[in-house]
Amino acid sequence: MNETARLIGVGVGPGDPELLTLKAIRALRDADVVAHFAKAGNVSQARAIAADHIRSNAIELPLLYPVTTEIPKGAPAYCDTIAAFYDDSAAAVAAHLNARRSVAVICEGDPLFYGSYMHLHVRLAPRYRTDVIAGVTGMSGCWSAIGAPIAQGDDVFTVLPGTLAEDELVRRLVDADAVAVMKLGRNLPKVRRALDRAGRLGRAVYVERGTMADAAVMRLADKPDDCAPYFAIVLVAGWERRP
Amino acid sequence: MNETARLIGVGVGPGDPELLTLKAIRALRDADVVAHFAKAGNVSQARAIAADHIRSNAIELPLLYPVTTEIPKGAPAYCDTIAAFYDDSAAAVAAHLNARRSVAVICEGDPLFYGSYMHLHVRLAPRYRTDVIAGVTGMSGCWSAIGAPIAQGDDVFTVLPGTLAEDELVRRLVDADAVAVMKLGRNLPKVRRALDRAGRLGRAVYVERGTMADAAVMRLADKPDDCAPYFAIVLVAGWERRP
Repeated sequence: MNETARLIGVGVGPGDPELLTLKAIRALRDADVVAHFAKAGNVSQARAIAADHIRSNAIELPLLYPVTTEIPKGAPAYCDTIAAFYDDSAAAVAAHLNARRSVAVICEGDPLFYGSYMHLHVRLAPRYRTDVIAGVTGMSGCWSAIGAPIAQGDDVFTVLPGTLAEDELVRRLVDADAVAVMKLGRNLPKVRRALDRAGRLGRAVYVERGTMADAAVMRLADKPDDCAPYFAIVLVAGWERRP
Repeated sequence: MNETARLIGVGVGPGDPELLTLKAIRALRDADVVAHFAKAGNVSQARAIAADHIRSNAIELPLLYPVTTEIPKGAPAYCDTIAAFYDDSAAAVAAHLNARRSVAVICEGDPLFYGSYMHLHVRLAPRYRTDVIAGVTGMSGCWSAIGAPIAQGDDVFTVLPGTLAEDELVRRLVDADAVAVMKLGRNLPKVRRALDRAGRLGRAVYVERGTMADAAVMRLADKPDDCAPYFAIVLVAGWERRP
Protein backbone atom coordinates (compact mmCIF):
# COMPACT_ATOMS: atom_id res chain seq x y z
CA MET A 1 0.00 0.00 0.00
CA ASN A 2 1.33 3.48 -0.78
CA GLU A 3 0.11 7.01 -0.18
CA THR A 4 -0.55 7.90 -3.80
CA ALA A 5 -2.65 4.91 -4.76
CA ARG A 6 -6.10 5.71 -3.53
CA LEU A 7 -9.59 4.58 -4.42
CA ILE A 8 -12.28 7.23 -3.96
CA GLY A 9 -16.01 6.62 -4.36
CA VAL A 10 -17.39 10.01 -5.32
CA GLY A 11 -21.10 10.74 -5.04
CA VAL A 12 -22.10 13.35 -7.62
CA GLY A 13 -25.70 13.71 -6.49
CA PRO A 14 -29.04 13.20 -8.22
CA GLY A 15 -28.56 15.05 -11.50
CA ASP A 16 -28.30 18.82 -11.06
CA PRO A 17 -24.56 19.63 -11.41
CA GLU A 18 -25.01 22.28 -8.71
CA LEU A 19 -25.75 19.49 -6.21
CA LEU A 20 -22.13 18.37 -6.31
CA THR A 21 -20.31 18.90 -3.03
CA LEU A 22 -17.06 20.82 -2.60
CA LYS A 23 -15.47 17.54 -1.53
CA ALA A 24 -16.52 15.76 -4.72
CA ILE A 25 -15.20 18.60 -6.86
CA ARG A 26 -11.86 18.57 -5.07
CA ALA A 27 -11.59 14.79 -5.47
CA LEU A 28 -12.25 15.09 -9.20
CA ARG A 29 -9.64 17.80 -9.59
CA ASP A 30 -7.04 15.70 -7.75
CA ALA A 31 -7.73 12.30 -9.33
CA ASP A 32 -5.35 10.75 -11.85
CA VAL A 33 -8.08 8.45 -13.16
CA VAL A 34 -11.85 9.01 -13.35
CA ALA A 35 -13.90 5.82 -13.68
CA HIS A 36 -17.63 5.59 -14.37
CA PHE A 37 -20.18 2.85 -14.95
CA ALA A 38 -22.51 2.93 -17.95
CA LYS A 39 -24.52 0.54 -20.04
CA ALA A 40 -22.67 -0.36 -23.24
CA GLY A 41 -23.60 2.20 -25.87
CA ASN A 42 -24.82 4.76 -23.31
CA VAL A 43 -23.18 7.83 -21.81
CA SER A 44 -22.55 7.58 -18.07
CA GLN A 45 -25.06 9.77 -16.27
CA ALA A 46 -22.55 10.39 -13.48
CA ARG A 47 -20.01 11.58 -16.04
CA ALA A 48 -22.54 13.98 -17.56
CA ILE A 49 -23.29 15.44 -14.09
CA ALA A 50 -19.61 15.88 -13.20
CA ALA A 51 -18.34 16.87 -16.67
CA ASP A 52 -17.33 20.43 -15.75
CA HIS A 53 -15.00 19.21 -13.02
CA ILE A 54 -13.10 16.41 -14.77
CA ARG A 55 -9.58 17.52 -15.67
CA SER A 56 -8.84 17.44 -19.38
CA ASN A 57 -5.68 15.42 -18.71
CA ALA A 58 -7.35 12.86 -16.44
CA ILE A 59 -7.33 9.25 -17.62
CA GLU A 60 -10.91 8.13 -18.11
CA LEU A 61 -11.92 4.55 -17.40
CA PRO A 62 -15.42 3.68 -18.59
CA LEU A 63 -16.77 0.48 -17.03
CA LEU A 64 -19.38 -0.79 -19.46
CA TYR A 65 -22.04 -3.22 -18.24
CA PRO A 66 -22.34 -6.27 -20.47
CA VAL A 67 -25.66 -6.43 -22.29
CA THR A 68 -27.45 -9.13 -20.34
CA THR A 69 -31.07 -8.29 -21.03
CA GLU A 70 -31.49 -11.60 -22.86
CA ILE A 71 -30.66 -13.45 -19.62
CA PRO A 72 -33.40 -13.38 -16.92
CA LYS A 73 -32.26 -11.55 -13.78
CA GLY A 74 -31.71 -14.03 -10.95
CA ALA A 75 -30.73 -16.81 -13.35
CA PRO A 76 -27.30 -18.32 -12.60
CA ALA A 77 -26.01 -17.19 -16.02
CA TYR A 78 -26.97 -13.57 -15.21
CA CYS A 79 -25.30 -13.72 -11.79
CA ASP A 80 -22.15 -15.24 -13.29
CA THR A 81 -21.97 -12.65 -16.06
CA ILE A 82 -22.46 -9.71 -13.73
CA ALA A 83 -20.04 -11.05 -11.10
CA ALA A 84 -17.39 -11.53 -13.80
CA PHE A 85 -18.02 -7.97 -14.97
CA TYR A 86 -17.45 -6.60 -11.45
CA ASP A 87 -14.33 -8.74 -11.06
CA ASP A 88 -12.96 -7.42 -14.36
CA SER A 89 -13.87 -3.83 -13.43
CA ALA A 90 -12.12 -4.16 -10.08
CA ALA A 91 -9.04 -5.56 -11.84
CA ALA A 92 -9.02 -2.61 -14.27
CA VAL A 93 -9.19 -0.16 -11.35
CA ALA A 94 -6.56 -2.12 -9.41
CA ALA A 95 -4.14 -1.89 -12.36
CA HIS A 96 -4.20 1.90 -11.98
CA LEU A 97 -3.88 1.71 -8.18
CA ASN A 98 -0.90 -0.63 -8.56
CA ALA A 99 0.68 2.01 -10.81
CA ARG A 100 0.29 4.45 -7.88
CA ARG A 101 -2.52 6.42 -9.43
CA SER A 102 -5.53 7.78 -7.55
CA VAL A 103 -8.84 6.59 -8.99
CA ALA A 104 -12.11 8.47 -8.49
CA VAL A 105 -15.15 6.33 -9.26
CA ILE A 106 -18.01 8.74 -9.87
CA CYS A 107 -21.51 7.63 -8.91
CA GLU A 108 -24.97 9.14 -9.27
CA GLY A 109 -26.47 9.86 -5.88
CA ASP A 110 -24.61 8.39 -2.92
CA PRO A 111 -21.91 5.75 -3.59
CA LEU A 112 -22.90 3.30 -0.84
CA PHE A 113 -26.69 3.59 -1.25
CA TYR A 114 -27.76 1.19 -4.02
CA GLY A 115 -24.78 2.18 -6.18
CA SER A 116 -22.61 0.15 -8.58
CA TYR A 117 -19.50 1.53 -6.87
CA MET A 118 -20.22 -0.81 -3.93
CA HIS A 119 -19.17 -3.78 -6.06
CA LEU A 120 -15.72 -2.23 -6.52
CA HIS A 121 -15.55 -1.15 -2.89
CA VAL A 122 -16.03 -4.62 -1.42
CA ARG A 123 -13.41 -6.02 -3.80
CA LEU A 124 -10.77 -3.29 -3.37
CA ALA A 125 -11.20 -1.54 -0.01
CA PRO A 126 -9.51 -4.40 1.90
CA ARG A 127 -6.37 -3.93 -0.22
CA TYR A 128 -6.09 -0.20 -1.01
CA ARG A 129 -6.47 3.08 0.81
CA THR A 130 -10.10 4.02 0.18
CA ASP A 131 -12.30 7.03 0.81
CA VAL A 132 -15.98 7.50 0.14
CA ILE A 133 -17.52 10.91 -0.44
CA ALA A 134 -21.21 10.92 0.42
CA GLY A 135 -23.60 12.44 -2.12
CA VAL A 136 -27.14 13.73 -2.24
CA THR A 137 -29.34 10.72 -3.05
CA GLY A 138 -31.76 10.59 -5.96
CA MET A 139 -34.70 10.34 -3.60
CA SER A 140 -33.62 13.48 -1.66
CA GLY A 141 -33.33 15.26 -5.00
CA CYS A 142 -36.87 14.21 -5.88
CA TRP A 143 -38.65 15.18 -2.67
CA SER A 144 -36.76 18.49 -2.59
CA ALA A 145 -37.63 19.29 -6.20
CA ILE A 146 -41.33 18.83 -5.48
CA GLY A 147 -41.17 20.39 -1.99
CA ALA A 148 -42.64 17.32 -0.28
CA PRO A 149 -41.74 16.95 3.42
CA ILE A 150 -41.12 13.21 3.51
CA ALA A 151 -40.58 12.11 7.12
CA GLN A 152 -40.58 13.75 10.54
CA GLY A 153 -40.45 12.95 14.22
CA ASP A 154 -41.09 9.28 14.96
CA ASP A 155 -41.98 8.34 11.36
CA VAL A 156 -40.66 5.04 9.99
CA PHE A 157 -39.25 5.62 6.51
CA THR A 158 -38.80 2.72 4.10
CA VAL A 159 -37.22 2.33 0.68
CA LEU A 160 -38.96 -0.40 -1.32
CA PRO A 161 -37.74 -1.82 -4.63
CA GLY A 162 -40.63 -2.06 -7.08
CA THR A 163 -39.36 -5.55 -7.92
CA LEU A 164 -40.97 -7.01 -4.75
CA ALA A 165 -44.05 -9.23 -5.14
CA GLU A 166 -47.37 -7.38 -4.98
CA ASP A 167 -48.52 -8.87 -1.65
CA GLU A 168 -45.15 -8.04 -0.11
CA LEU A 169 -45.41 -4.45 -1.35
CA VAL A 170 -48.91 -4.14 0.13
CA ARG A 171 -47.80 -5.47 3.50
CA ARG A 172 -44.84 -3.09 3.68
CA LEU A 173 -46.75 -0.06 2.35
CA VAL A 174 -49.32 -0.51 5.14
CA ASP A 175 -46.56 -0.81 7.73
CA ALA A 176 -44.42 2.27 6.93
CA ASP A 177 -45.22 5.92 7.56
CA ALA A 178 -43.17 7.29 4.66
CA VAL A 179 -42.07 5.37 1.58
CA ALA A 180 -39.91 5.75 -1.51
CA VAL A 181 -40.56 3.09 -4.16
CA MET A 182 -37.63 2.71 -6.55
CA LYS A 183 -37.03 0.59 -9.66
CA LEU A 184 -40.35 1.30 -11.33
CA GLY A 185 -40.15 0.63 -15.08
CA ARG A 186 -42.30 -2.38 -15.89
CA ASN A 187 -43.19 -2.72 -12.18
CA LEU A 188 -45.38 0.40 -12.21
CA PRO A 189 -48.79 -1.30 -12.72
CA LYS A 190 -48.02 -3.67 -9.83
CA VAL A 191 -46.83 -0.80 -7.61
CA ARG A 192 -49.98 1.18 -8.39
CA ARG A 193 -52.22 -1.80 -7.51
CA ALA A 194 -50.27 -2.38 -4.28
CA LEU A 195 -50.61 1.28 -3.24
CA ASP A 196 -54.34 1.14 -3.95
CA ARG A 197 -54.76 -2.07 -1.92
CA ALA A 198 -52.74 -0.52 0.93
CA GLY A 199 -55.04 2.53 0.93
CA ARG A 200 -52.14 4.85 0.09
CA LEU A 201 -52.60 5.60 -3.61
CA GLY A 202 -54.17 8.98 -2.79
CA ARG A 203 -50.95 10.20 -1.15
CA ALA A 204 -48.56 8.73 -3.74
CA VAL A 205 -46.63 11.12 -5.99
CA TYR A 206 -44.89 9.97 -9.17
CA VAL A 207 -41.60 11.74 -10.02
CA GLU A 208 -39.61 11.31 -13.23
CA ARG A 209 -36.23 13.01 -13.82
CA GLY A 210 -36.75 14.75 -10.45
CA THR A 211 -33.81 17.16 -10.48
CA MET A 212 -33.73 17.83 -14.22
CA ALA A 213 -35.24 20.81 -16.02
CA ASP A 214 -37.78 18.50 -17.72
CA ALA A 215 -39.01 16.80 -14.52
CA ALA A 216 -42.46 15.19 -14.63
CA VAL A 217 -44.41 15.21 -11.38
CA MET A 218 -47.99 14.12 -10.77
CA ARG A 219 -50.22 12.31 -8.32
CA LEU A 220 -49.80 8.66 -9.27
CA ALA A 221 -53.61 8.34 -9.26
CA ASP A 222 -53.67 10.93 -12.07
CA LYS A 223 -51.01 9.29 -14.22
CA PRO A 224 -52.90 8.16 -17.34
CA ASP A 225 -50.54 5.38 -18.41
CA ASP A 226 -48.27 2.74 -16.91
CA CYS A 227 -45.10 3.82 -18.74
CA ALA A 228 -42.22 4.67 -16.43
CA PRO A 229 -38.46 4.67 -16.77
CA TYR A 230 -36.60 2.39 -14.39
CA PHE A 231 -35.25 5.37 -12.42
CA ALA A 232 -38.58 7.08 -11.82
CA ILE A 233 -39.68 7.07 -8.19
CA VAL A 234 -42.93 7.06 -6.22
CA LEU A 235 -42.98 8.97 -2.92
CA VAL A 236 -45.52 8.60 -0.14
CA ALA A 237 -44.96 11.27 2.50
CA GLY A 238 -45.37 10.42 6.16
CA TRP A 239 -45.81 13.03 8.84
CA GLU A 240 -49.58 12.88 9.03
CA ARG A 241 -49.75 14.30 12.58
CA ARG A 242 -48.27 17.77 12.21
CA PRO A 243 -47.85 19.99 15.26
CA MET B 1 -46.15 37.30 -4.05
CA ASN B 2 -43.11 39.05 -5.51
CA GLU B 3 -39.90 37.85 -7.12
CA THR B 4 -37.53 38.97 -4.37
CA ALA B 5 -39.29 37.44 -1.39
CA ARG B 6 -38.21 33.85 -1.39
CA LEU B 7 -37.99 31.11 1.21
CA ILE B 8 -35.15 28.65 0.67
CA GLY B 9 -34.61 25.50 2.72
CA VAL B 10 -30.88 24.88 2.44
CA GLY B 11 -29.42 21.49 3.32
CA VAL B 12 -25.85 21.93 4.57
CA GLY B 13 -25.05 18.23 4.92
CA PRO B 14 -24.00 16.07 7.84
CA GLY B 15 -21.18 18.08 9.40
CA ASP B 16 -18.10 18.28 7.19
CA PRO B 17 -18.19 21.79 5.64
CA GLU B 18 -16.78 20.24 2.44
CA LEU B 19 -20.04 18.32 2.04
CA LEU B 20 -21.91 21.52 1.23
CA THR B 21 -23.18 21.63 -2.34
CA LEU B 22 -22.47 24.40 -4.85
CA LYS B 23 -26.18 25.15 -4.81
CA ALA B 24 -26.24 25.62 -1.02
CA ILE B 25 -23.24 27.92 -1.17
CA ARG B 26 -24.79 30.04 -3.89
CA ALA B 27 -28.04 30.29 -1.93
CA LEU B 28 -26.15 31.45 1.16
CA ARG B 29 -24.25 34.07 -0.81
CA ASP B 30 -27.49 35.44 -2.31
CA ALA B 31 -29.70 35.40 0.79
CA ASP B 32 -30.68 38.59 2.58
CA VAL B 33 -31.52 36.67 5.75
CA VAL B 34 -30.00 33.45 7.12
CA ALA B 35 -32.19 31.64 9.66
CA HIS B 36 -31.18 28.65 11.79
CA PHE B 37 -32.72 26.53 14.50
CA ALA B 38 -30.90 25.85 17.77
CA LYS B 39 -31.69 24.96 21.32
CA ALA B 40 -31.70 28.02 23.57
CA GLY B 41 -28.17 28.54 24.83
CA ASN B 42 -26.61 26.39 22.08
CA VAL B 43 -24.90 27.29 18.84
CA SER B 44 -26.74 26.10 15.73
CA GLN B 45 -24.86 23.15 14.27
CA ALA B 46 -26.05 24.11 10.78
CA ARG B 47 -24.62 27.60 11.27
CA ALA B 48 -21.27 26.17 12.34
CA ILE B 49 -21.15 23.97 9.22
CA ALA B 50 -22.04 26.83 6.86
CA ALA B 51 -20.11 29.61 8.66
CA ASP B 52 -17.59 30.23 5.88
CA HIS B 53 -20.32 30.97 3.37
CA ILE B 54 -22.58 33.35 5.30
CA ARG B 55 -22.13 36.93 4.13
CA SER B 56 -20.92 39.30 6.82
CA ASN B 57 -23.77 41.70 5.99
CA ALA B 58 -26.50 39.04 6.03
CA ILE B 59 -29.25 39.45 8.62
CA GLU B 60 -29.15 36.44 10.94
CA LEU B 61 -32.33 35.06 12.43
CA PRO B 62 -31.76 32.46 15.16
CA LEU B 63 -34.86 30.41 15.93
CA LEU B 64 -34.39 29.16 19.48
CA TYR B 65 -36.33 26.13 20.69
CA PRO B 66 -38.07 26.74 23.98
CA VAL B 67 -36.68 24.62 26.81
CA THR B 68 -39.37 22.01 27.19
CA THR B 69 -37.42 19.16 28.75
CA GLU B 70 -39.50 19.46 31.91
CA ILE B 71 -42.64 18.62 29.90
CA PRO B 72 -42.98 14.96 28.78
CA LYS B 73 -42.90 14.63 24.99
CA GLY B 74 -46.33 13.67 23.67
CA ALA B 75 -48.09 15.52 26.50
CA PRO B 76 -50.58 18.14 25.27
CA ALA B 77 -48.56 20.91 26.95
CA TYR B 78 -45.46 19.86 24.99
CA CYS B 79 -47.34 19.78 21.70
CA ASP B 80 -48.90 23.19 22.37
CA THR B 81 -45.56 24.74 23.29
CA ILE B 82 -43.75 23.37 20.26
CA ALA B 83 -46.59 24.25 17.85
CA ALA B 84 -46.60 27.81 19.19
CA PHE B 85 -42.83 27.96 18.69
CA TYR B 86 -43.15 26.90 15.04
CA ASP B 87 -45.98 29.39 14.51
CA ASP B 88 -43.86 32.19 15.97
CA SER B 89 -40.83 31.12 13.93
CA ALA B 90 -42.87 31.10 10.73
CA ALA B 91 -44.18 34.56 11.58
CA ALA B 92 -40.63 35.84 12.13
CA VAL B 93 -39.56 34.47 8.74
CA ALA B 94 -42.72 35.80 7.08
CA ALA B 95 -41.97 39.31 8.37
CA HIS B 96 -38.74 39.27 6.32
CA LEU B 97 -40.49 37.77 3.29
CA ASN B 98 -43.15 40.47 3.50
CA ALA B 99 -40.33 43.05 3.46
CA ARG B 100 -39.23 41.47 0.13
CA ARG B 101 -36.16 39.79 1.54
CA SER B 102 -34.95 36.31 0.61
CA VAL B 103 -34.61 34.00 3.61
CA ALA B 104 -32.32 30.94 3.61
CA VAL B 105 -33.15 28.51 6.40
CA ILE B 106 -30.06 26.38 6.90
CA CYS B 107 -30.55 22.78 8.01
CA GLU B 108 -28.20 19.96 8.95
CA GLY B 109 -28.53 17.09 6.52
CA ASP B 110 -31.46 17.29 4.11
CA PRO B 111 -34.19 19.88 4.82
CA LEU B 112 -37.19 17.62 4.15
CA PHE B 113 -35.84 14.47 5.84
CA TYR B 114 -36.60 14.68 9.58
CA GLY B 115 -35.62 18.37 9.64
CA SER B 116 -37.01 21.30 11.64
CA TYR B 117 -37.24 23.33 8.43
CA MET B 118 -40.28 21.23 7.46
CA HIS B 119 -42.34 23.00 10.13
CA LEU B 120 -41.66 26.34 8.42
CA HIS B 121 -42.16 24.87 4.97
CA VAL B 122 -45.70 23.62 5.60
CA ARG B 123 -46.66 26.96 7.12
CA LEU B 124 -45.08 29.23 4.48
CA ALA B 125 -44.74 27.38 1.16
CA PRO B 126 -48.44 27.85 0.31
CA ARG B 127 -47.99 31.64 0.55
CA TYR B 128 -44.44 32.41 -0.66
CA ARG B 129 -42.14 31.40 -3.47
CA THR B 130 -40.18 28.52 -2.00
CA ASP B 131 -37.21 26.40 -3.04
CA VAL B 132 -35.61 23.47 -1.28
CA ILE B 133 -31.97 22.54 -1.80
CA ALA B 134 -31.37 18.88 -1.04
CA GLY B 135 -28.44 18.01 1.20
CA VAL B 136 -26.35 14.99 2.10
CA THR B 137 -28.15 13.28 5.00
CA GLY B 138 -26.51 12.49 8.32
CA MET B 139 -26.94 8.78 7.70
CA SER B 140 -25.18 8.98 4.29
CA GLY B 141 -22.36 10.86 5.99
CA CYS B 142 -22.07 8.09 8.58
CA TRP B 143 -22.01 5.05 6.28
CA SER B 144 -19.60 6.85 3.94
CA ALA B 145 -17.27 7.79 6.79
CA ILE B 146 -17.03 4.16 7.87
CA GLY B 147 -17.06 2.76 4.30
CA ALA B 148 -20.06 0.51 4.96
CA PRO B 149 -22.06 -0.41 1.84
CA ILE B 150 -25.56 -0.08 3.24
CA ALA B 151 -28.09 -1.31 0.66
CA GLN B 152 -27.98 -2.83 -2.80
CA GLY B 153 -30.18 -4.46 -5.42
CA ASP B 154 -33.55 -5.53 -4.04
CA ASP B 155 -32.74 -4.70 -0.41
CA VAL B 156 -35.44 -3.05 1.69
CA PHE B 157 -33.92 -0.16 3.63
CA THR B 158 -35.67 1.22 6.72
CA VAL B 159 -35.07 4.19 9.00
CA LEU B 160 -36.27 3.45 12.54
CA PRO B 161 -36.53 6.00 15.34
CA GLY B 162 -35.06 4.57 18.55
CA THR B 163 -38.13 5.92 20.32
CA LEU B 164 -40.27 2.98 19.10
CA ALA B 165 -41.31 0.32 21.64
CA GLU B 166 -38.90 -2.60 21.97
CA ASP B 167 -41.24 -5.21 20.46
CA GLU B 168 -41.95 -2.92 17.54
CA LEU B 169 -38.22 -2.41 16.96
CA VAL B 170 -37.64 -6.19 17.02
CA ARG B 171 -40.42 -6.82 14.51
CA ARG B 172 -39.12 -4.18 12.12
CA LEU B 173 -35.45 -5.13 12.52
CA VAL B 174 -36.29 -8.70 11.52
CA ASP B 175 -38.27 -7.49 8.53
CA ALA B 176 -35.76 -5.08 6.89
CA ASP B 177 -32.58 -5.91 5.01
CA ALA B 178 -30.74 -2.69 5.86
CA VAL B 179 -31.51 -0.38 8.77
CA ALA B 180 -30.51 2.97 10.21
CA VAL B 181 -31.66 3.51 13.81
CA MET B 182 -31.79 7.18 14.73
CA LYS B 183 -32.60 9.07 17.96
CA LEU B 184 -30.48 6.93 20.25
CA GLY B 185 -29.66 8.82 23.45
CA ARG B 186 -31.46 7.17 26.35
CA ASN B 187 -32.99 4.65 23.91
CA LEU B 188 -29.68 2.85 23.34
CA PRO B 189 -30.14 0.00 25.88
CA LYS B 190 -33.55 -0.77 24.37
CA VAL B 191 -32.17 -0.61 20.81
CA ARG B 192 -29.34 -2.95 21.76
CA ARG B 193 -31.77 -5.48 23.29
CA ALA B 194 -34.01 -5.26 20.23
CA LEU B 195 -31.10 -5.88 17.85
CA ASP B 196 -30.03 -8.86 19.94
CA ARG B 197 -33.55 -10.33 19.98
CA ALA B 198 -33.79 -9.79 16.21
CA GLY B 199 -30.53 -11.67 15.71
CA ARG B 200 -28.88 -8.62 14.16
CA LEU B 201 -26.65 -7.29 16.92
CA GLY B 202 -23.58 -8.89 15.33
CA ARG B 203 -23.95 -6.75 12.21
CA ALA B 204 -24.83 -3.50 14.00
CA VAL B 205 -22.33 -0.64 13.92
CA TYR B 206 -22.52 2.31 16.29
CA VAL B 207 -21.44 5.70 14.87
CA GLU B 208 -21.08 8.93 16.85
CA ARG B 209 -20.17 12.28 15.19
CA GLY B 210 -19.84 10.36 11.91
CA THR B 211 -18.40 13.05 9.67
CA MET B 212 -16.37 14.88 12.30
CA ALA B 213 -12.65 14.51 12.95
CA ASP B 214 -13.39 12.95 16.36
CA ALA B 215 -15.83 10.30 15.08
CA ALA B 216 -16.36 7.24 17.28
CA VAL B 217 -17.11 4.00 15.44
CA MET B 218 -17.43 0.49 16.87
CA ARG B 219 -19.45 -2.69 16.63
CA LEU B 220 -22.41 -2.04 18.91
CA ALA B 221 -21.75 -5.43 20.55
CA ASP B 222 -18.33 -4.08 21.60
CA LYS B 223 -19.61 -0.80 23.04
CA PRO B 224 -18.92 -1.10 26.77
CA ASP B 225 -21.57 1.37 27.99
CA ASP B 226 -25.04 2.57 27.13
CA CYS B 227 -24.15 6.27 26.84
CA ALA B 228 -25.03 7.78 23.48
CA PRO B 229 -25.84 11.27 22.28
CA TYR B 230 -29.25 11.72 20.71
CA PHE B 231 -27.73 12.14 17.24
CA ALA B 232 -25.62 8.99 17.26
CA ILE B 233 -26.78 6.33 14.83
CA VAL B 234 -26.75 2.54 14.53
CA LEU B 235 -26.33 1.07 11.05
CA VAL B 236 -27.11 -2.49 10.01
CA ALA B 237 -25.93 -3.10 6.46
CA GLY B 238 -28.00 -5.21 4.10
CA TRP B 239 -26.64 -6.71 0.94
CA GLU B 240 -25.91 -10.13 2.37
CA ARG B 241 -25.98 -11.86 -1.04
CA ARG B 242 -23.13 -10.25 -2.94
CA PRO B 243 -22.49 -11.16 -6.57
